[in-house]
Amino acid sequence: MSEVYAVRRGLLRDRCAAAGSAAALVTRPANVRYLAGAAPRGAVLLLGPAPSEDTLLCPRAPAKDPADGRPDEALRQTVLPAPGGDPVVAAADLAMALGAESLAVEEHDLTVARHRAMGSVAPRLRLADLGSAVEQLRVVKDEEEIACLRIAAEITDHALGELLESILVGRTERHLALELERRLVDHGADGPAFATSVATGPHSGRGGHRPSDRRVEEGDFLSVRLGANYRGYRCAIGRTFVIGTTPADWQIELYDLVFAAQRAGREALVPGAAYRDVDHAARHILESAGYGEGLAPWTGHGVGLEIDEDPQLAPAAMGKLDACVPVTVEPGVHLPGRGGVRIDDTLVVRPEADGGPELLTITTKELLAL
Amino acid sequence: MSEVYAVRRGLLRDRCAAAGSAAALVTRPANVRYLAGAAPRGAVLLLGPAPSEDTLLCPRAPAKDPADGRPDEALRQTVLPAPGGDPVVAAADLAMALGAESLAVEEHDLTVARHRAMGSVAPRLRLADLGSAVEQLRVVKDEEEIACLRIAAEITDHALGELLESILVGRTERHLALELERRLVDHGADGPAFATSVATGPHSGRGGHRPSDRRVEEGDFLSVRLGANYRGYRCAIGRTFVIGTTPADWQIELYDLVFAAQRAGREALVPGAAYRDVDHAARHILESAGYGEGLAPWTGHGVGLEIDEDPQLAPAAMGKLDACVPVTVEPGVHLPGRGGVRIDDTLVVRPEADGGPELLTITTKELLAL
Repeated sequence: MSEVYAVRRGLLRDRCAAAGSAAALVTRPANVRYLAGAAPRGAVLLLGPAPSEDTLLCPRAPAKDPADGRPDEALRQTVLPAPGGDPVVAAADLAMALGAESLAVEEHDLTVARHRAMGSVAPRLRLADLGSAVEQLRVVKDEEEIACLRIAAEITDHALGELLESILVGRTERHLALELERRLVDHGADGPAFATSVATGPHSGRGGHRPSDRRVEEGDFLSVRLGANYRGYRCAIGRTFVIGTTPADWQIELYDLVFAAQRAGREALVPGAAYRDVDHAARHILESAGYGEGLAPWTGHGVGLEIDEDPQLAPAAMGKLDACVPVTVEPGVHLPGRGGVRIDDTLVVRPEADGGPELLTITTKELLAL
Repeated sequence: MSEVYAVRRGLLRDRCAAAGSAAALVTRPANVRYLAGAAPRGAVLLLGPAPSEDTLLCPRAPAKDPADGRPDEALRQTVLPAPGGDPVVAAADLAMALGAESLAVEEHDLTVARHRAMGSVAPRLRLADLGSAVEQLRVVKDEEEIACLRIAAEITDHALGELLESILVGRTERHLALELERRLVDHGADGPAFATSVATGPHSGRGGHRPSDRRVEEGDFLSVRLGANYRGYRCAIGRTFVIGTTPADWQIELYDLVFAAQRAGREALVPGAAYRDVDHAARHILESAGYGEGLAPWTGHGVGLEIDEDPQLAPAAMGKLDACVPVTVEPGVHLPGRGGVRIDDTLVVRPEADGGPELLTITTKELLAL
């Protein structure tokens, strides 16, 4: 397993060297975990000119929590001697000691104050920008990463499936959300991948709705969005149900529309498809039906060590899908005051020859009346 | 209520003006909430030269979630027209339009990349450092803030009290933690103030232990740490119990020691006491008993809109306590392989004439055998 991390660091080292930096400092936690196998709280990763110099700098002795992952044993590990010190400052020192003249840092993560502190301690070290080089490496997943996502999705499907068997009317959004999170953990998740959203009645269909004290009522739309974190890998599923025996006509129509949009988005997931075309496939169905106004700025995004990572499936996104990129497809329509529908899946882009996109979240997308 | 926010912004405006900046940009979410009454996701607050120019800039239409607070109605509110835009760039533009020559920003929060983007869009705007001016304003709380903390502590005590009445043996740390979080919400919390920690047996007494699948066993120490978030205000309680009928001698000794340290810390909470002296009061008792080695670098810290804010009660901390500062006192000892004890309270510093420190978390600190 350890070689995986060394290979990833090697790729990054090559990119840095090509850009003129002999050393790089990775601070964004998901990037640290990707390259080091673990991201103890506050830890940063210094890539030296030579692989044997790669060092994980921790602000204090890391707690040994299996859910945090295990640091690659091929990596040097240093705990700062003084509590309260900033590992990025120690990393600047170390980079100087290793003879680096230039250090690439993650300017999109590092604060101005920390950047300045590095400059003060190592004034002759040129601080360059690493940009989103690690995020770009993370886009295409290896099969081990996809296996983690697959397990995360299985756990998520189980948790949701159990909820559907229970009585829902009269329970609050908050309770249902907490129960879903408990079930995720019951089934082996390290935790929820993000804050579980449960939205009833007029709240339904709203992206990122935070559970309130509203209770589920007969006739409601109920939309839920949840996902498991398994070994750091996060997936998402979203489903909308109807409470009661018979959905109203407007509910059936809206559901069918969002379902069609979501299917179009899923079907557009082929290697080589432009991000914006996938977005367009789903979006134009909703727009043509007159729901263009309140749509979210994206209809899907990458998932992995973060729940929302590159690529973004949005009208202005630049780039094309590769195989082995896991993404969500999650269009939704919310009608203020009435409610709405969201359907989210996590899928892995696969070539047609391999059967097309691999659906990880397999809970039915029929409109269930619960 | 609205005047509170205007007064706070007025204080900050005065400080900025004194430091030579006519305008300030607040980006840290807790600081935005403190000055604006709410912090919709991604929103930033621009303080203009005149109070009527103060503007909350939101990346998109904010979801109306009561738990997020309500934006002060005296404040201008702008939603960025284009999705994906960065409100700090719009704020730099607006500051220029308002005639500001200099804008103070939170360099400890703003990333290098965002800072640079502001510089590109407004090259003639001098970007100064606001430092932790807002954090400093937040240290001393008004009675309304303390009332929120008091309610948060009541909720927390209730949730913990109910847990103590249930059967614990055989249940996992994860389950107990999830149950505590559910109970917090049941009793009116907007959510947990931080990730609830439940630590059994050899895990007990470890600060920040993340709940595992270990089950509670007879003879274990069980330490829990939890807190409610009520209207944005967060408190913490930590208690350690013994499972079974009779604690072992080493358990009683260790408990009494940590209890004595925690009491000493609490008793040191008087207006005018140096932060480091409060820390010392608790710490030296543990050190004298030979447990100096593995101690946390602090024995307490401020609480409010964040669970861990200024001041820090630590050996090298500079500054003195004021009245109306809520802090935790939370010493602990963990013996690797055996377990340990943590006792955390949230208190408000009050003058002796007012009865001394106000204990918010009132669950008993006797060593209960459950």
